[in-house]
Amino acid sequence: MASLVRSATLRALKPLCNVTLNDAVLRRSQTLSVRAFSTNLSPPSKAVVYEQHGPPDRVTRVIELPPVEVKENDVCVKMLAAPINPSDINRIEGVYPVRPQVPAVGGYEGVGEVQSIGSAVKGLSPGDLVIPSPPSFGTWQTYIVKDQSVWHKINKDSPLEYAATVTVNPLTALRMLEDFTTLKKGDAIVQNGATSIVGQCIIQLAQHRGIHNINIIRDRAGSDEVKEKLKNLGADEVFTESQLEVKNVKGLLGGIPEPSLGFNCVGGNAASLVLKFLGRGGTMVTYGGMSKKPVTVSTSSFIFKDLSLRGFWLQKWMSTEKAFECRVLIDHLLDLAREGKLKYEMELVPFDNFSAALDKALGKQGSQPKQVINFQL
Amino acid sequence: MASLVRSATLRALKPLCNVTLNDAVLRRSQTLSVRAFSTNLSPPSKAVVYEQHGPPDRVTRVIELPPVEVKENDVCVKMLAAPINPSDINRIEGVYPVRPQVPAVGGYEGVGEVQSIGSAVKGLSPGDLVIPSPPSFGTWQTYIVKDQSVWHKINKDSPLEYAATVTVNPLTALRMLEDFTTLKKGDAIVQNGATSIVGQCIIQLAQHRGIHNINIIRDRAGSDEVKEKLKNLGADEVFTESQLEVKNVKGLLGGIPEPSLGFNCVGGNAASLVLKFLGRGGTMVTYGGMSKKPVTVSTSSFIFKDLSLRGFWLQKWMSTEKAFECRVLIDHLLDLAREGKLKYEMELVPFDNFSAALDKALGKQGSQPKQVINFQL
Repeated sequence: MASLVRSATLRALKPLCNVTLNDAVLRRSQTLSVRAFSTNLSPPSKAVVYEQHGPPDRVTRVIELPPVEVKENDVCVKMLAAPINPSDINRIEGVYPVRPQVPAVGGYEGVGEVQSIGSAVKGLSPGDLVIPSPPSFGTWQTYIVKDQSVWHKINKDSPLEYAATVTVNPLTALRMLEDFTTLKKGDAIVQNGATSIVGQCIIQLAQHRGIHNINIIRDRAGSDEVKEKLKNLGADEVFTESQLEVKNVKGLLGGIPEPSLGFNCVGGNAASLVLKFLGRGGTMVTYGGMSKKPVTVSTSSFIFKDLSLRGFWLQKWMSTEKAFECRVLIDHLLDLAREGKLKYEMELVPFDNFSAALDKALGKQGSQPKQVINFQL
Repeated sequence: MASLVRSATLRALKPLCNVTLNDAVLRRSQTLSVRAFSTNLSPPSKAVVYEQHGPPDRVTRVIELPPVEVKENDVCVKMLAAPINPSDINRIEGVYPVRPQVPAVGGYEGVGEVQSIGSAVKGLSPGDLVIPSPPSFGTWQTYIVKDQSVWHKINKDSPLEYAATVTVNPLTALRMLEDFTTLKKGDAIVQNGATSIVGQCIIQLAQHRGIHNINIIRDRAGSDEVKEKLKNLGADEVFTESQLEVKNVKGLLGGIPEPSLGFNCVGGNAASLVLKFLGRGGTMVTYGGMSKKPVTVSTSSFIFKDLSLRGFWLQKWMSTEKAFECRVLIDHLLDLAREGKLKYEMELVPFDNFSAALDKALGKQGSQPKQVINFQL
């Protein structure tokens, strides 16, 4: 597979850590001359590469990778956009459970346009809009060559930034609403980290299904505006953590029933608040730990309140389910995005400004919209 | 139902908190004279009563309760033995989620012999050995009158102390091995608090089924003897908490597979150790919190290790299942006890020494065997 060829080329770059970009370019032209027999070659690819794990702003650099052969089952995709997700950062840091082999290209999801296809490829043509589905490593580059099975053709009218980001966050929200309890219209859920993209998707997907949603945000300047924004998305209730420092949080619920399902992407006190809201027999699903604090649970919550604590990891779900189901759900989510029923804030950034976008994604400038690299700007 | 009559009598005793026992006896004889029309009366009952919630050694006292009528569907049982369980203590303290209405008689399980039956009772005769099943309040007394449906006739050869204690602890162990994962021969479980009666039952029930069991005990003087004792019961591995202060606890397992199910009755560090042993996708069931410390779990345990945390409460299980299933399992457990395949240490104490037994059960003399009141000694 061509991607293996490029990955071998990347491995060949390993000794280049301390050499100049010019040396790398020289090496690339040598590689190219070796491959001159090939009839169908990709363009060279400008890629965000890291050759060792570590702080992403130190270990990544943008280099040009040589053309690779587009074999008979391969599709060459010109990437249009790809986000910088927290899990991308963790992968570069080497703290993610699935540790990409270095050297590697960053990124995990994104959207592109078919540039050329191998002779045996069916169902995809140049100009088609595609995403890697399930997502796979190495989306932070201008051209990707991978087997046709990797690519899912999506509706050409899909908004670019949503197509680039539809899997990691919105699909997590959708699956978590499905996989743990059976929710029916009029039921309720509770979540912390409600301003995260998954949080915003949960609000909107719950609202479409007539499910009440109770949201917890952290105390911050401007929290009234944040509440207003989430309510405009479809939030029923939004509380700051400090508002919930009361004996009986359920007294704040008015006519909303006790939630049977809760979502936690923060940990620490914010997780305890989710547990407080849950009714007897309820389930809390942890999918993130932004506070870097663990989840602490009383014995009586387990025994007498019969709470269940679970976890969700999209990458595991995708590895156990058929790719088909994943793609059907992606299409559904992109339909919602196209109809304006699923939205969240993003910032499209030209590829040339990658390091500024990375700094924002690393939180160096406080809370920022999701950074999405636009390879065409 | 006669039990309601006695409970009304108990309520009448409420104002007597500060009067002498003689006054109470006087009041009882007045009650008796009002009921003189009844043809089938129970004997008077000597009972451990509390009239308010609080420290059991302060709020309980032994008094004589007046005879009550044995109505047509009632069975009068002469109690033979009843244990002092931690949950009995919590009920008296008023910290148990199901708070008995005071005044109340202590105790929740026990065994007795049918003394007399109402005219419509079928399938029970004087001399039968019976237990309240599911258990119910008020077993710490010499005579109990309750509807025939309360009583389950057991094998007359059942060892008295096991018949008295078979429900709360052994049935918890049996259910927890059944209700959370499907274990097959060769699988493994891990538990803390392995010296508790539930812990000892888990070891034996697991061993009968060919399930490896890994046990964690606290560090204490004589822990080598404790290990030896548990191994004689059927424990595969026994570790003290300090032995598990290593980076990779699973390296200690030798040929035993990673456990898929864990049990926690301690909380704090001992719960974290159970979690460390569990394999990916494993479940930890909390059924107690002896350390009074909460359970603390890392975010990655939920997301990447896919652990589930659940709770078990026998009282809830019994309230949702048919009494029939409960009784079939009780018979099975008593068969095992009779065959010597299920055993745990107990101390039979004459009723006259109740307050000494209570002190032991309250932990005033350190670790002690389960205290079982023998009403016939």
